[in-house]
Formats: sequence, structure tokens, C-alpha cells
Amino acid sequence: MDADDLGPYSNYRLTVRLELTNRVGVFARMATALAEEGASIGAVDIVTATPEKVTRDITFDVRNESQGQAVVRRLKELPDVRVLSVSDRIFLMHLGGKIHIQNKHPLTTRNVLSMVYTPGVGRVSQAIAKNRELVHLYTTKANSVAVVTDGSAVLGLGNLGPEAALPVMEGKAMLFREFAGIDAWPICLDTQDPDEIVRIVRGIAPSFGGINLEDIGAPRCFEIERRLKASLTIPVMHDDQHGTAVVILAALANALTVVKKRFEEVKVVVNGLGAAGLACCEILLAAGVQELVGVDRLGIALAGSSERLREARKDLPSITRYDQPSGTLQDALRGADVFIGLSVGNIVKPEDLDLMSEDRVVFAMANPDPEIAPELAMPRCRVFATGRSDYPNQINNVLSFPGLFRGALDVQATDINEAMMLAAAEAIARMIPFGTLSEDYIIPSVFDKQVVPHVAKAVAAAAIRTGVARKTDKPVNSKE
Amino acid sequence: MDADDLGPYSNYRLTVRLELTNRVGVFARMATALAEEGASIGAVDIVTATPEKVTRDITFDVRNESQGQAVVRRLKELPDVRVLSVSDRIFLMHLGGKIHIQNKHPLTTRNVLSMVYTPGVGRVSQAIAKNRELVHLYTTKANSVAVVTDGSAVLGLGNLGPEAALPVMEGKAMLFREFAGIDAWPICLDTQDPDEIVRIVRGIAPSFGGINLEDIGAPRCFEIERRLKASLTIPVMHDDQHGTAVVILAALANALTVVKKRFEEVKVVVNGLGAAGLACCEILLAAGVQELVGVDRLGIALAGSSERLREARKDLPSITRYDQPSGTLQDALRGADVFIGLSVGNIVKPEDLDLMSEDRVVFAMANPDPEIAPELAMPRCRVFATGRSDYPNQINNVLSFPGLFRGALDVQATDINEAMMLAAAEAIARMIPFGTLSEDYIIPSVFDKQVVPHVAKAVAAAAIRTGVARKTDKPVNSKE
Repeated sequence: MDADDLGPYSNYRLTVRLELTNRVGVFARMATALAEEGASIGAVDIVTATPEKVTRDITFDVRNESQGQAVVRRLKELPDVRVLSVSDRIFLMHLGGKIHIQNKHPLTTRNVLSMVYTPGVGRVSQAIAKNRELVHLYTTKANSVAVVTDGSAVLGLGNLGPEAALPVMEGKAMLFREFAGIDAWPICLDTQDPDEIVRIVRGIAPSFGGINLEDIGAPRCFEIERRLKASLTIPVMHDDQHGTAVVILAALANALTVVKKRFEEVKVVVNGLGAAGLACCEILLAAGVQELVGVDRLGIALAGSSERLREARKDLPSITRYDQPSGTLQDALRGADVFIGLSVGNIVKPEDLDLMSEDRVVFAMANPDPEIAPELAMPRCRVFATGRSDYPNQINNVLSFPGLFRGALDVQATDINEAMMLAAAEAIARMIPFGTLSEDYIIPSVFDKQVVPHVAKAVAAAAIRTGVARKTDKPVNSKE
Repeated sequence: MDADDLGPYSNYRLTVRLELTNRVGVFARMATALAEEGASIGAVDIVTATPEKVTRDITFDVRNESQGQAVVRRLKELPDVRVLSVSDRIFLMHLGGKIHIQNKHPLTTRNVLSMVYTPGVGRVSQAIAKNRELVHLYTTKANSVAVVTDGSAVLGLGNLGPEAALPVMEGKAMLFREFAGIDAWPICLDTQDPDEIVRIVRGIAPSFGGINLEDIGAPRCFEIERRLKASLTIPVMHDDQHGTAVVILAALANALTVVKKRFEEVKVVVNGLGAAGLACCEILLAAGVQELVGVDRLGIALAGSSERLREARKDLPSITRYDQPSGTLQDALRGADVFIGLSVGNIVKPEDLDLMSEDRVVFAMANPDPEIAPELAMPRCRVFATGRSDYPNQINNVLSFPGLFRGALDVQATDINEAMMLAAAEAIARMIPFGTLSEDYIIPSVFDKQVVPHVAKAVAAAAIRTGVARKTDKPVNSKE
């Protein structure tokens, strides 16, 4: 993969195949032209070379499609340069899909065929028919998760429908495979009706070991998750809610250690009360936060005594008053220790942060633009984090959902409950090596291979402790 | 896979690890004991050896579980032999499931991550949202099939439910991968209600390129397939019906060539009017058979003028009179040229075959025991075939369904229609090399690597010809 040395936020990346006259200065002129058009050059490969001509593949990043077209036009006008082809790296990588299925046994002889298919497989089927629990041992159910969406809230892009959601769900399946050794298959639904979704997911549940709900819009996502959790005996988790909440809790625990404050004594403002925001409020209350204020577009929509909030935490939507705000974001920020943004870009002003108390912690998670630009926020707070990889402290739920499902599958859990989520958050937080915790290092890297096994172990132990594990012997970490 | 040199019908296969005293005669005594218990010895491997002891893994086949236990008891009683462990090969091969998912791109850097997942994937999603047809190009839909069952008719074992059906569906997915390079995922449904099944399969259809219905009992399977075909724009095929029918038609075409008869002039008796039997009648009528008699448990249930039958062939269940037989199987067989059994074992007597005309063709497809034992039937007919691999002429739908779906996916077909099935049957029939067709060689081997590409090409061409292909340029065979 020769694209590795390009920036992480490239989402418009082209590769042009150019035939250049083999003469000093031609390459430099071409590179200068690219720079003048604002294109960031990445990999440069030689395809063929003769004394007269050199054919090269040049990969570059631009901001958008029209800039890409402008660059190609400019290249076509250059003397001594011929554009042979233009290809779009991202689309090329998606051709035919990004995941495929492999057999664990080669089917090259009648003998293997007779064991994995008829007649041999019949014995396994009969054993499962006698004792249904064996399905967790002898089938893909042991290690599989359905990544289910209705396409109603695809990334930050909106209601694009099930087909457009499919490449995202495939990407999610890739993360499950790479980070947790889990076999996840995308299921994009042809309906956005909660009753239908619940019905369909229940219907397909026998073949899966877990259900990861993804990119389903609020408030439907709350009801759908609740009903599925109540009726299925495999773990169900809406990752946009709880995967996000768990990793935020982990980061916040470390941030508070850095600023020497405790969950019980801080005032936390959560801005944006969609799926992620409400789940974040829920887990913060479970972790012991006493003073919590939830703010949505119109103002403060969730506040009250700590007892009232904590009692209602499993059904926060029912006490959230989106249309009857009791104050502004600024009111909420006054004296707050922590701001967690799960809303939209650039809605917090630098002076808003000054309303907060000393040693403030600010997590601005909106994507791609945070609630406040890092350059503006960083000088004004003690700890700052975003969802982006180009600043320190990237809060990314790839740190949480793979370990949550890995741990749940390892003990054949019937649920992913609050205790398992708290255990996951604690395990993530503890991944920062002793003595290295600092303002710029409150959360491990997504490429830290130690994270998932540690999270999975903690999650499995919590599942056993809370009685939702079918398998209660020593949890095996089965990441392949 | 060291089991390759064992017989193909082993469905109870054990591996024992034995510690034998390292002395002449001990191994022979052990082997003799196995033979006396009726165990068929397969692979023998040495694990470790010292001057005193040899540890060996011995794999053997027995008829059933109790025989297996008797063999192990006998081994434990032998002097100089210690049984260290006993393992069941078939169950071992099923541990954790038989298929897994792999990523096409390694997710080891932020850059690849940013192209296959956010933010890069967002561009692909937006492109598909603008033009939904692109989902066939840039996602797994291009190459994926859902293998859907309700567990109501698992192999020949009956209504075992969705969990018990899962290992069979996984086996089917393995066949799709091995023989057609297709990514098939098992979907086992928690309902046997036709309305619910139709609803659920419609619901999950956006993420799949095709639907293979499997092991769904008759008569529900007819209605379910019909309704799904009518409402979905991806191919839907119940393999137990049409996969079987296609390969039978292929074998019959060649058998008739051997006996120098034509479809238009033969009388065919189909015995067993379940899913496979009725689909077989349907395709025989489409292929030009004029005289067809369908027989079920109580007797002749489907007969009539060739025009009437041919007109009704898309809805044969509606004219099949299971409860009002108009004659016996023997009545049907009188003067018949072809007998096709898709029913149960050992229900045809040798003298029944004598009622048929000269140069008779008999396909006895019941599994594992054919309608008449090969030893009894072979002397009495010109061409004899079964579904078993231990006799000549194995009629196995692994010859048909991989190529049918491969061809359909290659041209993004909206359906698998009758023309495509007839084309598949013809392509399979033509795989017998010129001049080698004979009584014992009417159908290619399931391991003939040429079959699927040829069938796929014919199916794709038929799809284009009949207007159900989205992609009408030169069909590409994308088997990986």
C-alpha cells in the first residue's frame, strides 16, 4: 500500500499515470504545477522507463472533485507530459467490495466435502437439534456479528439509505476483523420502521453471535436497541451510542487524573443529545458523575438533581426536554469542569471556554470539524481531545467496540450490559503505561495491539460477574 | 488433510491418540482389534517415538456412535496400549464454524483506514446515494449471496430448526466460495411463517447480490420463492428445487443421447412431488418432454395432456392432487422410458423396473439410500444414476447452483429465470468431452474446474438474451 505516506484526512485522492519526456527539469515542472494547484503529492512510482520517455504513477491528494479536475486539466496542458489515465484510489479500493469469505478447510477432496457438508454435517446438525446451546460451539455463531443499519444516519452524511450505507458497514466489518478477529457481516435494511427493524433483526438472530447496530438515527435507535436487547439472547449494542460513550468515559477518567479531579466532584456539560450524547450522559452517571447538564440545539434540555438523573439514566430520552430549554449553552458552561461535544462543528467560541472553571477538560468530538477548532481551544484548556487523528488524544470507538464484542463472544454472553461497558472503559483507560499519562496522552493509539485483548478480558470477566455469560470457565481470548 | 484416503461416506470418524509399547507385534495386535470391531483404519501418524514407547494418531471410520464407543473400549483393554485421547474429526472440523471473513486491504495504517472507512468511504456512500446502481460495483453486493433457511427441511433430517441448520448453510457457503468464488453468508431464520420469511428476506436484500433459499419445506417453499422473486430485483433461487432440477435435466439430456431417444418422445415418471420433484417436472416440461407422470406417496398425483401440463408448469402445485391419486407407481412405470426418484429409499422393486420400456433410464436420487439399491437396479437398466459419490453418474447440484449464481452476479442479473436454468443444464451436459459419453459417464465430476466457468458464461448470456441483465457488456468471469 504505497499511500501510507500521505496525510490521514485524504478523502479525495487521485492517481494519474503520466508519460514524461525523459529530460532534466520535466519532472520538476510537473511537480511545481501540482503544487501550484494545491495538490499534495504522495507516492511516485516508475512504471516503465526508456531513454526517451518515463511513465510514472503519481498519487496526490486534493480537497474535492473540482480541484481534482483542475489538477488534471493543468497536467494535460503541460508540455512534455501526457496524461495516460486518471484513477481514484478510494473508488478503486472499493471495487467489488472490501471483505470476502474464506473457508477454514480446503474443499479439494470428496472426503473433506463429506465431513463439512453432507453426510457428515448431518451429525453436527442433529447434535445441535438435541442441544441448541452447541450452536455457540460448532458454528460461525461463535464468532460472528451482524453489522445492522437502516441507512438513516450514515456517518455525518444523513439519511442516505441502505445501499449507500453498505460501504460503511463493510468498513466496520473490516475493523471487527482486523482489531478483534470477529467475522462481521453487513446487513443493510430496506426499511426505517422500528417495528420492522426489530422484527427483521430478531428473525436473522439465530445465525449471529451478536448484533452491532450502526448509523441508525435518534430517537428511533433507542427504542430499537431496547426492544432487541429485551427479546434476544445474544448481545445487542448500538455502537454510535455505547461504543462512543465507553471510549469517552475512558478518556475522561484519564483526563480527570491529569487535572487531579474526581467524577464525583466535577460538573460535566454534554453538548448534543443525539444517540452518542445521551449514551454518554448515561455512562457518566453510571460512573459516578453528580453534576451533569445536557445541552441540545435550543439550549439546556437535560438537567436536574443527581439522584433524579441517575435513576432515569436507563431512559434519558424520556426526561430530555428538547423543546423546552431551561438555559443556554453558556449558562451550562459556567463553572463546568468538563465539556463534551457530540454535536456539530464550530459552535463553541473561545470566550465560551473562559466561562468554565480552572483546569478545564474539553472533548470536541464533532466530525470532521470539532465544536471548536483545536488551535483556538488548546491554549484555553488543560486537556483537549477530538475524534481526529491529526491532533493528540484521538477519541475513536475503534478502541471500544472490538473489545466489547470480543469479550462478549468469548464467554457466549447474552448481553452487553452496563457493567461490561464500565469494565471496558476502565481497561482502555489503564492502557496508558504507568507514569506516562499527561495532558497530551490520555488515550491509547488505535493501533495499540494490546488494547483489544485487555478490553476483551475485562468485559468477559464483567459478564461472568454479572451473570450474563453462558461460558463461565476461564475466558479464552480467541483473536486469530 | 490426512483423511483423504478414507471412504467418502464416512460420517462417523474418530481419531484416537495411542501410546504403544515399542515392540514388534503391538501395532499389528492393535490393528487386528480394530478390524475385528469393524472399524476401517485411515490415516496413521506418528506423534513421538522413543525406544520404549511410540505415540500414534489413528483415524478410523465406524458406522455409528455405539460402534465407536465399542472400538475405544476394546482399545482400552489391549495390553501394551494406552488410549491418551479420543477425538471426533467431524466435530473438530466444525469448532468455531467453517467460514471466516477476510479483509481485501490490510488495515495497518491510518491512511488505508481513512480510505476504506471514514472519511474516505463517505465519498463512495455519497456516490451510491446519488446513483443506487453503483452499489453493484463498489460493495460486497457485487459478489455476495445470502444462504437463507428456516430450518424446516434440513438435509433429509427434517424440521431441526434454524440453529441446527446453521452448519449445513455454512457448508453451502463453503461450496459457493470454493466452486464459484462467491461470498455467501448463512442466514438462519427464527420463523417458519411464509409471510414473515418473505418480509425478513426483503428487509435484508439491499446488502446481497442474490438469495439462495435452502432446506425450506414444501409446499411453503413454492410460495416464498414466488413472492420473493416478484418483489426483489436480485436473483432468488430455491436450490433444493431448481439446482436439483437443472442438474437432473443435464444428466437426462446426456442419458437420452446414450440411448438414442429425444425429450419429445419419452415418457418420464417423476416419483416424489416435493420441492425437487415438482421443480424437476417444471424444467422437463420446459425442455420439451411431452409425456410426464408425477407420482407421490399415495400414487399418481400429476398427469394430463402435455399442453395442459406445459401451460401450468409455473404453478404445478396448483394442479397436483396428492390426495386423489389416479393410479399406482406401477401404473405410471408401465411403458416409461425414464424414472426419476426424488423421494425415499428402497421403494422401487426390481420387477417394477421391468414394467418400463427398453433402454430405460433410472435416476434414483433419494439420500443416503436410493429408491432402489444400485446393485439391484444396474443390471436392469441401460443408464443408472444416483446422488451418491460411490457409484458412477453422481448427480449433485454442486454442478449447477455455483454456476447459476456466478453467471447471474457477473451480469448483475435481476433474476434467475427459466432460460438461464435451461442454459445451465445444457452447459453442464456439454462438459462431457466429445466421444466419451457413455452409460457410465453422463455427468461431469463435481471436481471438474471447467464446469462453473462454462455454466456461468451460458447463464450470463441467457440473462442478457432475456433482458434480465443490468450489465450487458461482455460477461466477465470473476471467479477468484
